[in-house]
Amino acid sequence: MIVESNVVRFDCIQLDNGATLAPVDVAYETYGELNERKTNGILILHAFSGDAHAAGISHETGKPGWWDNMIGPGKAFDTNRYFVICSNVLGGCRGTTGPSTVNPETGCPYAMSFPVITMGDMVRLQKMLLDSFGIERLLSVSGGSMGGMQALEWAVSYPDRVVSAIPIATTTRHSAQQIAFNEVGRQAIMADPDWNEGNYYGRKPPARGLAVARMVGHITYMSDDSMREKFGRRLRGKENFGFDFDVDFEVESYLRYRGSQFVNRFDANSYLYITKAMDYFDLVNGHGSLAAAFECTRARFLVTSFSSDWLYPSYQSQEIVRALRSRNRDVAYVELLSNYGHDAFLVDVAEQTDLIRGFLASTYEKVQ
Amino acid sequence: MIVESNVVRFDCIQLDNGATLAPVDVAYETYGELNERKTNGILILHAFSGDAHAAGISHETGKPGWWDNMIGPGKAFDTNRYFVICSNVLGGCRGTTGPSTVNPETGCPYAMSFPVITMGDMVRLQKMLLDSFGIERLLSVSGGSMGGMQALEWAVSYPDRVVSAIPIATTTRHSAQQIAFNEVGRQAIMADPDWNEGNYYGRKPPARGLAVARMVGHITYMSDDSMREKFGRRLRGKENFGFDFDVDFEVESYLRYRGSQFVNRFDANSYLYITKAMDYFDLVNGHGSLAAAFECTRARFLVTSFSSDWLYPSYQSQEIVRALRSRNRDVAYVELLSNYGHDAFLVDVAEQTDLIRGFLASTYEKVQ
Repeated sequence: MIVESNVVRFDCIQLDNGATLAPVDVAYETYGELNERKTNGILILHAFSGDAHAAGISHETGKPGWWDNMIGPGKAFDTNRYFVICSNVLGGCRGTTGPSTVNPETGCPYAMSFPVITMGDMVRLQKMLLDSFGIERLLSVSGGSMGGMQALEWAVSYPDRVVSAIPIATTTRHSAQQIAFNEVGRQAIMADPDWNEGNYYGRKPPARGLAVARMVGHITYMSDDSMREKFGRRLRGKENFGFDFDVDFEVESYLRYRGSQFVNRFDANSYLYITKAMDYFDLVNGHGSLAAAFECTRARFLVTSFSSDWLYPSYQSQEIVRALRSRNRDVAYVELLSNYGHDAFLVDVAEQTDLIRGFLASTYEKVQ
Repeated sequence: MIVESNVVRFDCIQLDNGATLAPVDVAYETYGELNERKTNGILILHAFSGDAHAAGISHETGKPGWWDNMIGPGKAFDTNRYFVICSNVLGGCRGTTGPSTVNPETGCPYAMSFPVITMGDMVRLQKMLLDSFGIERLLSVSGGSMGGMQALEWAVSYPDRVVSAIPIATTTRHSAQQIAFNEVGRQAIMADPDWNEGNYYGRKPPARGLAVARMVGHITYMSDDSMREKFGRRLRGKENFGFDFDVDFEVESYLRYRGSQFVNRFDANSYLYITKAMDYFDLVNGHGSLAAAFECTRARFLVTSFSSDWLYPSYQSQEIVRALRSRNRDVAYVELLSNYGHDAFLVDVAEQTDLIRGFLASTYEKVQ
């Protein structure tokens, strides 16, 4: 399945911080066919470093989408039945307007003059995209990690537009530890002199700072167990310790490689803006309690978490479930057993596939 | 109790990597009185960023020692009964020879020409210090984290010199995850242009890289729970999000402060060398198995870990206990309940005090 990204431009978007962004582009991909009544639309929401290329093989790069094991004919999000849409988030660097976009008023990239954005802003832009398709109600909104935050934001902000929501390995608000890990990443980027207060476009980007930030991220995405299985204390291309500061262990080599690769596909300023939006996200805000926040929701929920995920631990998903149940909302919860840590939602998909397939089928029946 | 640091110089030390370091200084402090038979000596081993100032009030800085709540008259390590010694590790930057020391052959600091050192080297230097006191057998060796590694190394390398060992919140070898966190810290330092391949003495040190490294460290020293209790999502000096990249959350402020403060008391090259020594440490090396490594030991052991410590999780302490028991060694193990994460061995000392006091008293009875 060869797929192509599209870009749609909107005149402007109003942001939560009071600013207006004009114009605003959204990069997106679609898979499957929208039915006549437009009742089979599913919005897939990507995680922090994801993009609109969720499934199929990219016409441009030849690479599979980030959730290709979950989206396609016969897969969890079955494109023989459903029309699946995925867009790059506002503030991103993969086709949607973000800090690397040229500000038409100045002719220069926004850089740090880009307004600070929120999950609410990201979701508002997604709603504009859905409006352009004429889709009044989404059969489902689903995503893991930051994508799960957006699924929750959709269900609370646009209750009439969402039949079901599948937030995976996520939270209604970051804990101090989650904010702390994001802050370390931001500080690593801003400590790099090449960051230059965000003005590095057309020059040398803050590659070293961004690589360090990504290395921290990768540790948090894996579990102690999965790192042991994947690397253990194996040495890299040597029989004994080098007694120097070159790579000794395979895990060092992996982290350095992943850090350096990330620089080629991600913009450091987008890192700052998107992690800030995650840290700001708090579903309780303006509602007094999580249960009150869910008061207005009309969606069915399937909430999942992974046993070895210590970045978004199961207790955070269980808080969602408790609050929904306290308002008698329709919610199913499963903690999936996996060794893969937070990465599990991307890689350990067998049981996840069964769960989501069944949940979507029963939801789809109700709207037919 | 006002205390002063002392420094003793040795002609040279042979290192595990084959090099010789000459001369070598050791900074140390002592508390209490050595008895006539020299049977009441206890060696305290500091953690990664610690130093020789373990107890009392420093004559020089007016600050209490890093384990002052555990060492002193009537405390866990009771200086009315025992003679307590603590020295700064080889490779350190607090009085003992390390990368910031001037190489007498060149007249310049060693910097990265300092030899890569091991836990074995650190312990060998401590043994030279003990020899200078004429202490043939230590009543106990004890420390948390990296200090615990040294306690284990002592028991295995010098079995006739150690009556008992108290390794706390430690491991016999770093897991891939532990290596990974250390590697991120090293990369953060080496990514800072001010690091300048280690040649920054007399110039601007790599303060930003070292601060980022320390921030990562602090997250790993605390638990998810203790960060929630200490910071939650509280904002710092503001009612609402700033919608900018200044400090919003208290946890951000704390991390930035601790990161920036660290630069004043720690040398970035010591960070590199000491974390490398921790990553290299593997008690199994040369023995085939952990049980075989403990075969030669003659010490009694008290092994403790903390329930919320995810950096040195309890399973690592339990591996020590299993291996010792498999050789029928005298070992007691307690997992202490604490919310403080890895920091618990420094701050949550009530139950730890009872345990250690009793263990030392019964050990001391046997040698009288």
